[in-house]
Amino acid sequence: MEPVTKQETRHTINNFVSVDCVIFGFDFTQLNVLLVDRVMVDELTGKEIFSDLTLAGNHIYEDEDLEEAAARILFDLTGLKDIYLEQFKTFGAPGRISRANDKLWLEASGRDPNDRIVTVGYYSLLATDKVTLEWKGRNVRWTPVSEVTELAFDHMEILNEALIALRQSLIREPIGFALLPSKFTLSQLQRVYEVILGVSLDKRNFRKKVSRMKYLVSLEEKQIGVAHKPARLYSFDRDMYESTRKELLDFAI
Amino acid sequence: MEPVTKQETRHTINNFVSVDCVIFGFDFTQLNVLLVDRVMVDELTGKEIFSDLTLAGNHIYEDEDLEEAAARILFDLTGLKDIYLEQFKTFGAPGRISRANDKLWLEASGRDPNDRIVTVGYYSLLATDKVTLEWKGRNVRWTPVSEVTELAFDHMEILNEALIALRQSLIREPIGFALLPSKFTLSQLQRVYEVILGVSLDKRNFRKKVSRMKYLVSLEEKQIGVAHKPARLYSFDRDMYESTRKELLDFAI
Repeated sequence: MEPVTKQETRHTINNFVSVDCVIFGFDFTQLNVLLVDRVMVDELTGKEIFSDLTLAGNHIYEDEDLEEAAARILFDLTGLKDIYLEQFKTFGAPGRISRANDKLWLEASGRDPNDRIVTVGYYSLLATDKVTLEWKGRNVRWTPVSEVTELAFDHMEILNEALIALRQSLIREPIGFALLPSKFTLSQLQRVYEVILGVSLDKRNFRKKVSRMKYLVSLEEKQIGVAHKPARLYSFDRDMYESTRKELLDFAI
Repeated sequence: MEPVTKQETRHTINNFVSVDCVIFGFDFTQLNVLLVDRVMVDELTGKEIFSDLTLAGNHIYEDEDLEEAAARILFDLTGLKDIYLEQFKTFGAPGRISRANDKLWLEASGRDPNDRIVTVGYYSLLATDKVTLEWKGRNVRWTPVSEVTELAFDHMEILNEALIALRQSLIREPIGFALLPSKFTLSQLQRVYEVILGVSLDKRNFRKKVSRMKYLVSLEEKQIGVAHKPARLYSFDRDMYESTRKELLDFAI
């Protein structure tokens, strides 16, 4: 652990650029997103002025690259390092900070809500069970993406754009395998695609399609200790993926 | 045209965020990039201190979203609107401004080179002949991408990342058709892919692959007025592309 004094003397690069992390959590039932409670309390009366939710965002320290700031936020929220983390879009519309709650919140922390703050969006994908839910004294909670209807600032737009980017990545790259145990069934793999794409897939079609994935290795093993008929286990071969990927790119045109 | 006074009273959002445009130009022979001369002159002696090249970058005005700033730069350099323009990555490493020339340049315009400037990268793709080459009194020139070895700031990295993003888009989306006349030959289409991907493609393999593109329409027409045997003409059917694209996404998994 770093000494506390070091943390305290770190300076942010400025008040005009931030990083927001859309941390997606997968749990075989639904796709979730990690949201942070934002509670504004009147200092004199102790009465709550408002309470809503934000994505996990933060400033950038002087010694950090943008991706390092995003990885720090992810680590602070989850205790995890070397997790899939992707920069997907930067947001800086003139009206980003126009709602009363957002203005109050910024003013309370000594910032000018009329300043333009540009935020660099990152998204991440992990298994929901891997998270310890505390951050800077604020409550952090998994919420099903389908139930999120309103967020602070323009975080709803950022979430939607992240979801589009995540789904495109899932179709183009084997990012879903990190959510599975090293040996998994085709039903589990299908759930990864169904949950993240938000669709229901035909089992037979799905199996026909994944049978073309050379990097999906059929093992001479079956599930143990399950109530139903044990299913065959599979594993993901990254080396095979890397080499077929090159072929695929050659083939693309 | 806007009145000059309006331009003069526009304020930038701050000195910490900028937009850089990687404007790619295609000319059937090679892929080019639009570079801007940066010449630093000693005010007293009139002697040149240094001269190098940058991408086309600029600040963001108060009334502009990031994409609007990028579109403005693109318009100022080319006179073109509604051109393919894509945000691909934001750059903000601690050492972005570390070279002597870059520091001198910023200081001369009243900025502190120790400030972190975060820049949002956009790339664009157009036909080289469509450009009028003047910008804020600085020379603007097309340079073959293969001949660019050094640029100011971290613009070499930005160019390289833009090139990767452009090539991925070309493989995934039909962005190359905008570079062709409405009726084109398969040889012209092949050149688009060869020039942008920087490869040489086998003619027979290429034709076999594009024959699968339902949105490539074979016309009952041939070239006119060419010295060689006239080739068949084709056109791009955007509606067909949009509908097959949906099928493709369904098919992807």
